[in-house]
Amino acid sequence: MQIDEIFEANKRLKNKKRITPLLNSPFLDEIAGRKIFIKAECLQHTGSFKFRGAYSAISSLPIEKRKKGVIAYSSGNHAQGVALAAKIHEIPATIIMPEDAPEIKINNTKDLGAEVILYDRLNESREDIGKKISEENLLSLIPPYDHTHVIAGQGTIGIEIAEQANQNGIEKADVLVCCGGGGLTSGIAVALSKLMPSFITRPVEPEGFDDVIRSLESGERQVNEQISGGLCDAIITPTPGELTFPLMKKYCGEGIVVTDEEVMKAIALAFTRLRIVVEPGGAVALAAALFHTKKCNNDTLVAVVSGGNIDPDIFRKAIEMT
Amino acid sequence: MQIDEIFEANKRLKNKKRITPLLNSPFLDEIAGRKIFIKAECLQHTGSFKFRGAYSAISSLPIEKRKKGVIAYSSGNHAQGVALAAKIHEIPATIIMPEDAPEIKINNTKDLGAEVILYDRLNESREDIGKKISEENLLSLIPPYDHTHVIAGQGTIGIEIAEQANQNGIEKADVLVCCGGGGLTSGIAVALSKLMPSFITRPVEPEGFDDVIRSLESGERQVNEQISGGLCDAIITPTPGELTFPLMKKYCGEGIVVTDEEVMKAIALAFTRLRIVVEPGGAVALAAALFHTKKCNNDTLVAVVSGGNIDPDIFRKAIEMT
Repeated sequence: MQIDEIFEANKRLKNKKRITPLLNSPFLDEIAGRKIFIKAECLQHTGSFKFRGAYSAISSLPIEKRKKGVIAYSSGNHAQGVALAAKIHEIPATIIMPEDAPEIKINNTKDLGAEVILYDRLNESREDIGKKISEENLLSLIPPYDHTHVIAGQGTIGIEIAEQANQNGIEKADVLVCCGGGGLTSGIAVALSKLMPSFITRPVEPEGFDDVIRSLESGERQVNEQISGGLCDAIITPTPGELTFPLMKKYCGEGIVVTDEEVMKAIALAFTRLRIVVEPGGAVALAAALFHTKKCNNDTLVAVVSGGNIDPDIFRKAIEMT
Repeated sequence: MQIDEIFEANKRLKNKKRITPLLNSPFLDEIAGRKIFIKAECLQHTGSFKFRGAYSAISSLPIEKRKKGVIAYSSGNHAQGVALAAKIHEIPATIIMPEDAPEIKINNTKDLGAEVILYDRLNESREDIGKKISEENLLSLIPPYDHTHVIAGQGTIGIEIAEQANQNGIEKADVLVCCGGGGLTSGIAVALSKLMPSFITRPVEPEGFDDVIRSLESGERQVNEQISGGLCDAIITPTPGELTFPLMKKYCGEGIVVTDEEVMKAIALAFTRLRIVVEPGGAVALAAALFHTKKCNNDTLVAVVSGGNIDPDIFRKAIEMT
């Protein structure tokens, strides 16, 4: 994985992705005791960073192969990203989603024109289902993270962070990234290792689902004991990716674990102080910036808010904390 | 009021204001049956466009006068805008606020370092109180809308809309603007009349507080029967401004009135489809774009979402509609 691949993805995504703003608030700075900047990727098309990787991967397929259509498996955000990216390319998309995914994510994926196939997260392997259907129909599989062009697409956020950091006079920073399979984290880490060598990219995970952080500590890929039932559904994955883990090992600093309560508080503070809607999985990095500041090296922190597709009931509970 | 004054304000605000994103969603386009773009000014510093006008006005004061401090009267958003702009200039700010303003707005204003003086909206004149204190203390009064440099500051949104419209290939559009005293509407209308002569700027007001729209219809400044108690507290003013009304008369198209129910639906849709937090007064233009499309001339609509400082209870009620 070279930074050139991220620059290439950035070219393909030009005028397709939204350049999301870097937000801040003196009230959040006061809580953290440091300067916090928030990369508001919840404002990306389909409400999460996943559109970038999906578009990057689809746009890099050879035209004849692409025309036959794509398939993806996802708990929701990757699904919507692939559905929209396929729609823009005017090709069919089939999405395999867990049957316990939030209803809004299933409906949004269908409304974006994709065919949705539901599966049982505990008893079936989405990888096996995806492989079977894609072989039968000659569809190209767009994996959620373990794919060079997907990682490169997510890495375009790193390019934007570097540009926006320069505009804001930020010379050194810890960059905290919500981490599931590691596509977003590794893409950003690769980009920043070249563009901003004094920045440290750190994965952030929810308590109980800290496979990446334990893997970085041990040097070997670790597995989560459970793979469903957490608040932060969007970033629950069994283990770090085969491609993403070596990249994170090479380019990331130590990770940070946050609690569900800290996540809910971060959602509430993003509501009152930034006026953005953040989903639990998208709030873990902000929670780390606000409540685990001491684990960071620099006076300036950049937290990537990775998604905003939250169940309204959970959001209502979060803002009761304001 | 000349466009040059808006360009001057834009220079003073460079690297101070946030260039807010122009958002969109295929789901909102489908509801409106047209292409809707949302200028998300709720993401501005302090959560509303008011920071622009306040900073523009304070930065244009002669240095010796400015050092003595500023005073403002406001139901909340202008208060926070002036407080932050004063803080950046390192000068004292006194803010006169109605005692029934949302608590969060009063607290935020204090937390931004301003001295807050509360008044009774029904029995006292905020203009009289402001004048008295500013004369006693040699403070410069920063009015909420009827002031050339304030209007010019809000007009910088028009410059950004023109640039973002060009980036998005938008050649013709109705630009719908949340309208209170008319500072935002007139500033944008002046800017767009020069930069995008094929655009039509239209004020949007809540039912029962449509003084500007009735004034434009009759050609004379009309007065609202009530000046408190509405859902859209941030944009309730007694009558159009002396400076803003002639500008709106010259540069604006016909206005649009929306109901409180439409405003609540717009807040809910902004939550699910744009992942932004919008306050009632900041949602009227989006409500008009979604539910009064037929009153617009063009296939593309730009709705300015002017603020996001909403009471959590009202927000909870709005998202129950999702």
